[in-house]
Amino acid sequence: GALGGLGLGLGLWRRQQQAAMAASEEDEEKKEEEELRQRFMAPPVSGLRELRRRRRELRSRMELLIMETQGEVCRALAALDPGASFAVDTWERKEGGGGISCVLQDGEVFEKAGVNVSVVSGLLSEEAARQMRSRGKALKAKDGKLPFCAMGVSSVIHPKNPHVPTMHFNYRYFEIEEADGTKQWWFGGGTDLTPTYLNEEDAVHFHKTLKEACDKHDLKLYPKYKKWCDDYFYIKHRGERRGIGGIFFDDMDSPSKEEVFQFVKSCAKAVVPCYIPIVKRHCHDSFTPEEKQWQQLRRGRYVEFNLVYDRGTKFGLLTPGSRIESILMSLPLTARWEYMHTPPESSKEAEILEVLRNPKDWVH
Amino acid sequence: GALGGLGLGLGLWRRQQQAAMAASEEDEEKKEEEELRQRFMAPPVSGLRELRRRRRELRSRMELLIMETQGEVCRALAALDPGASFAVDTWERKEGGGGISCVLQDGEVFEKAGVNVSVVSGLLSEEAARQMRSRGKALKAKDGKLPFCAMGVSSVIHPKNPHVPTMHFNYRYFEIEEADGTKQWWFGGGTDLTPTYLNEEDAVHFHKTLKEACDKHDLKLYPKYKKWCDDYFYIKHRGERRGIGGIFFDDMDSPSKEEVFQFVKSCAKAVVPCYIPIVKRHCHDSFTPEEKQWQQLRRGRYVEFNLVYDRGTKFGLLTPGSRIESILMSLPLTARWEYMHTPPESSKEAEILEVLRNPKDWVH
Repeated sequence: GALGGLGLGLGLWRRQQQAAMAASEEDEEKKEEEELRQRFMAPPVSGLRELRRRRRELRSRMELLIMETQGEVCRALAALDPGASFAVDTWERKEGGGGISCVLQDGEVFEKAGVNVSVVSGLLSEEAARQMRSRGKALKAKDGKLPFCAMGVSSVIHPKNPHVPTMHFNYRYFEIEEADGTKQWWFGGGTDLTPTYLNEEDAVHFHKTLKEACDKHDLKLYPKYKKWCDDYFYIKHRGERRGIGGIFFDDMDSPSKEEVFQFVKSCAKAVVPCYIPIVKRHCHDSFTPEEKQWQQLRRGRYVEFNLVYDRGTKFGLLTPGSRIESILMSLPLTARWEYMHTPPESSKEAEILEVLRNPKDWVH
Repeated sequence: GALGGLGLGLGLWRRQQQAAMAASEEDEEKKEEEELRQRFMAPPVSGLRELRRRRRELRSRMELLIMETQGEVCRALAALDPGASFAVDTWERKEGGGGISCVLQDGEVFEKAGVNVSVVSGLLSEEAARQMRSRGKALKAKDGKLPFCAMGVSSVIHPKNPHVPTMHFNYRYFEIEEADGTKQWWFGGGTDLTPTYLNEEDAVHFHKTLKEACDKHDLKLYPKYKKWCDDYFYIKHRGERRGIGGIFFDDMDSPSKEEVFQFVKSCAKAVVPCYIPIVKRHCHDSFTPEEKQWQQLRRGRYVEFNLVYDRGTKFGLLTPGSRIESILMSLPLTARWEYMHTPPESSKEAEILEVLRNPKDWVH
């Protein structure tokens, strides 16, 4: 009786315990989901459940990182521009995947600030796959098609005040499966600054913050990716760079998936500390109409780079099913082109041009 | 004596007559040169003497035509904007030839009006020669190089008032000499209109004037080149045309050099009558800030077409030694990009978009 009772009692107790544990695990999961939901601008493209299910896979961890970065950057920007707010658009891609575009337009501090996440997958043609990689490695396809998965966070922030620079960053991850089942993967990304006027202190702060993020992983990374950035953002027909650089890399697939991911994470975490202090320092600076006009001319050069040279923009415009509004979010609200504009010698305008023509080393 | 005297007298008289004839011929030439000088914006690239020396050659007649067209258009525009005037820059190309750029900026009527002549020659790589022709015909080169001569007049007129459309035209002539001495030649060109708001009467006037110019030569030309224009000025990533079209053609090398030249001449002569009446009709129209803003957004699309798709711009940006300021003269003084801008249904803005998405027949 007693034993029987105990048996029954124990059985009941166990079932109750199990139910309680399951409930608390479920509670835990719900709490965690609730927390993520508050940190993210929208539910992730792959869904929280699915991301939890495959939580050990790199593509899941990367998707969480880009969502987290989007939330972090949007919150930091919104805090500086209290009158404005981010419009959040989630969109689906017919061919697979989708994205979340967050745009703040015509605020007090920001003319146009866009932070975009996209997670797309499907089948690529061999030609398209080759174009995705800057080194253009050959990939062996089955029936001419390659299953792929591409995800990234990308952002361009155009402030109103000509003393606050434009900032761009992008961190991305690709996976392509070859005919024999081999998975090719690589990361790419970068963060770079485009000031209208040169402020040495800002330039040094920006580059130092990026260098610190790189140095934690390998001392060779910052110098290599700083140079790559200067080379990449080159407006050839003008003989000038788009801005004062930062870091840029592509096709990064060594030393290991985990190590590259940790490096990309450090870079993504450095976005807010490298840029936000500069915005805070200058967003209330006074400026003249002439300074605003010089900013508008520089915006014109930004448009020239993005439409003529930027690989991401060109790839996006040519890819069927891509979301044009999210790609062209990078263009400024307003820009200007004057025929034969040349700033006077020794002016503040000539000073920044000099640096755009001959990139400087900011951290030594 | 008398006879001798007569003989002597006759000899003297003859010499005097010859001298007088030569002088009057020279006077005639000088008068003609003076007239041309007054009609042209600057001395032609090849020089008046050289053009006179080879006056029967087509390249000389074409150079005179493009100089004449530049003068005609600049005078017609300047007459409508009395406060402003054209800045005239003549430039030389290190590799051979040069050009004359005429730009009126920030006038009362015109935001930016550029009319550019260029006459260049030298050696082309086989690759560059292929790219020059839209049909990409193979050309046989001697030692990989092809002697070429390219000349043209090109122009973009951006008015201030959103009720006055932007107009573009370009007429050009190419000669390439193959290894065996064969001379390939062809003409290209076109005139097209980009209104911010649709005005049916203007659209019909513009297309009718172009059709009349074409119809004098061959009734098949207008329909063919109207369609080519709609196809060429297509902003693929937007699914819209840049404007309401006009005519566009390339690689025109039949029925004969003389006949094609006469056709191109008719087109060039039609520029002023197809556009100037439209400017006159609307340059004093009143407009709202919202209409100005829509114009600025449309200017953004103009920039997108020119930087992403336009063959001439792309070719120019990639060609060493080309004059960037003259190529990018086509960009508007100011432009705007808003994220996710969609005009309300049945608005005037939606009306022009509809025509840009589905080109209309304006003359039947």
